[in-house]
Amino acid sequence: MKVISFVTIIIILSFFFLHNESFAQSEGKYTIVIHGGAGYISPEISQEIKKAYLSSLKVALKLGKQILSEGGTSLDAVEQVVKFFENDSLFNAGKGAVFTSTGWHELDASIMNGIDLSTGAVAGVKKIKNPISLARLVMEKTPHVLFAGEGADNLGKKFGVGIVENNYFDIHRRYQQWKLKQQEEVKGTVGCVAIDFYGNIAAATSTGGLTGKWPGRVGDSPLINAGTYADNNTCGVSGTGQGELFIRLTVAYNVSALMKYKNYSLEEAAKEIVFNVLPEGSGGIIAVDKDGNYALPFNTASMLRGVANSEGIFEVAIWK
Amino acid sequence: MKVISFVTIIIILSFFFLHNESFAQSEGKYTIVIHGGAGYISPEISQEIKKAYLSSLKVALKLGKQILSEGGTSLDAVEQVVKFFENDSLFNAGKGAVFTSTGWHELDASIMNGIDLSTGAVAGVKKIKNPISLARLVMEKTPHVLFAGEGADNLGKKFGVGIVENNYFDIHRRYQQWKLKQQEEVKGTVGCVAIDFYGNIAAATSTGGLTGKWPGRVGDSPLINAGTYADNNTCGVSGTGQGELFIRLTVAYNVSALMKYKNYSLEEAAKEIVFNVLPEGSGGIIAVDKDGNYALPFNTASMLRGVANSEGIFEVAIWK
Repeated sequence: MKVISFVTIIIILSFFFLHNESFAQSEGKYTIVIHGGAGYISPEISQEIKKAYLSSLKVALKLGKQILSEGGTSLDAVEQVVKFFENDSLFNAGKGAVFTSTGWHELDASIMNGIDLSTGAVAGVKKIKNPISLARLVMEKTPHVLFAGEGADNLGKKFGVGIVENNYFDIHRRYQQWKLKQQEEVKGTVGCVAIDFYGNIAAATSTGGLTGKWPGRVGDSPLINAGTYADNNTCGVSGTGQGELFIRLTVAYNVSALMKYKNYSLEEAAKEIVFNVLPEGSGGIIAVDKDGNYALPFNTASMLRGVANSEGIFEVAIWK
Repeated sequence: MKVISFVTIIIILSFFFLHNESFAQSEGKYTIVIHGGAGYISPEISQEIKKAYLSSLKVALKLGKQILSEGGTSLDAVEQVVKFFENDSLFNAGKGAVFTSTGWHELDASIMNGIDLSTGAVAGVKKIKNPISLARLVMEKTPHVLFAGEGADNLGKKFGVGIVENNYFDIHRRYQQWKLKQQEEVKGTVGCVAIDFYGNIAAATSTGGLTGKWPGRVGDSPLINAGTYADNNTCGVSGTGQGELFIRLTVAYNVSALMKYKNYSLEEAAKEIVFNVLPEGSGGIIAVDKDGNYALPFNTASMLRGVANSEGIFEVAIWK
């Protein structure tokens, strides 16, 4: 009996020290990055619009920071931040989603958990107020990872998420862009990536797509590997830009692959993809690695973005 | 004038030699691999069914081989082979597509061109006789790469491809599987990868998905990086198995990434992904590299497959 008790105590102590060491590495440490789309916002925009963008970015960042600083999970932080963007008509996601070529709105979103590479996504939903929350339900409550079209809307009804009529997304500014066949000054998409106290990385992306996109078109935002990726062993990524290019060039996963296979740092990997793999003018990414480092490179004129961490950094910006 | 003429001649000759050298590398050489799904076909199946599978595989392989041996492109070969499988009710793609949980059929397909990483895909189509041909039209005739749901069906109508009623896909054998809630003995999916005389690699995949899948569910087959990938600098890949795992583990692109970033041979990369990254029993891949090498690893009991090349190999098989 004595031998058994001794072994038991050793095992318990080992668990305690192992757990403690792992916890100590990241205790109280967190990093969060956000984006509200890469594109071509003119530096000549009115002070009023500039203030509105910066103010929304700050509120979103503060919301995520608070969840993380109170010991919340990165998964909750990225979902809540993206949900905030979806409810703010300034951004091309949720309420502010652009018009398709036929005058509808079709929304895409995805979320990924770096603990176990679990993921959920929806594409082309027309009646879901917060696509990011449905994406999370896909991840946690279904055996599948991606739902598209009517099936995805029906899944939302089944799960009891907020359902709206498609004209909920009709915003006068977006209507003008569509009628004038103007491409969005911001290339749509919002996103958030975070690492929490526990060393877990999560990433989330949501979008209304391209103004005047063909009905049924799916971009990179609901596709992990293309627009969203998270792996606790490397990094988390959310992309914004020309979705078709992000799919063909496996943008989000490639940042992780360069770290995993070529030992690149996060900064090296992110810059390689944004400045050497993606063509100039096509977009940007936000990323956080397993040590809390971050990178926000973009090859367009502007990227609405922000970063906050436990070291006291709290910054938002539009241009370079 | 003399100087200009001399320069012109040099340029023309350079082009000739460069083109010739590149052509000579692969002149008359080609490789094609096919699959009709990885899974658990019992070695006890009747001789009749075994013969039917092997016979269909041979016809498909012969069709692709003929296109390539006559100097056709790998893109034409993979499309035509997958179209053949879609029209053969033995396979879970096109005509033989399984039932969803609500008794419908929703089909997925993708195609990728290794020359320029261009790609096209459709997900959840209900009325398209040959999804692979619509995927090719998405690649060649639209500014987008992926269409899902009703928008994808409407695109097919617009392009004038073969339209059928959803009950065209009702097959008695699939109906029984659905009613008895049996998972398919073959884990669905058909695919083809080829390299042609010109050194160009193409890959294509098509499926009816999982028996009893939730409506709107999209698997790996229409997602490049997950189920399909082709890059002339590395390899082409088509996957078959548990789609959700293939998406989360970026299966098809990862074979290419291991070659590109870690200098793995095709065989090393394909085996690494199928035997060390994917869990046992989850599926397999077929792949061809830029030098015409091939790999057909699977970690299930069976994978309907075949390979043919310009060196005279012509083989089809079901079990290990």
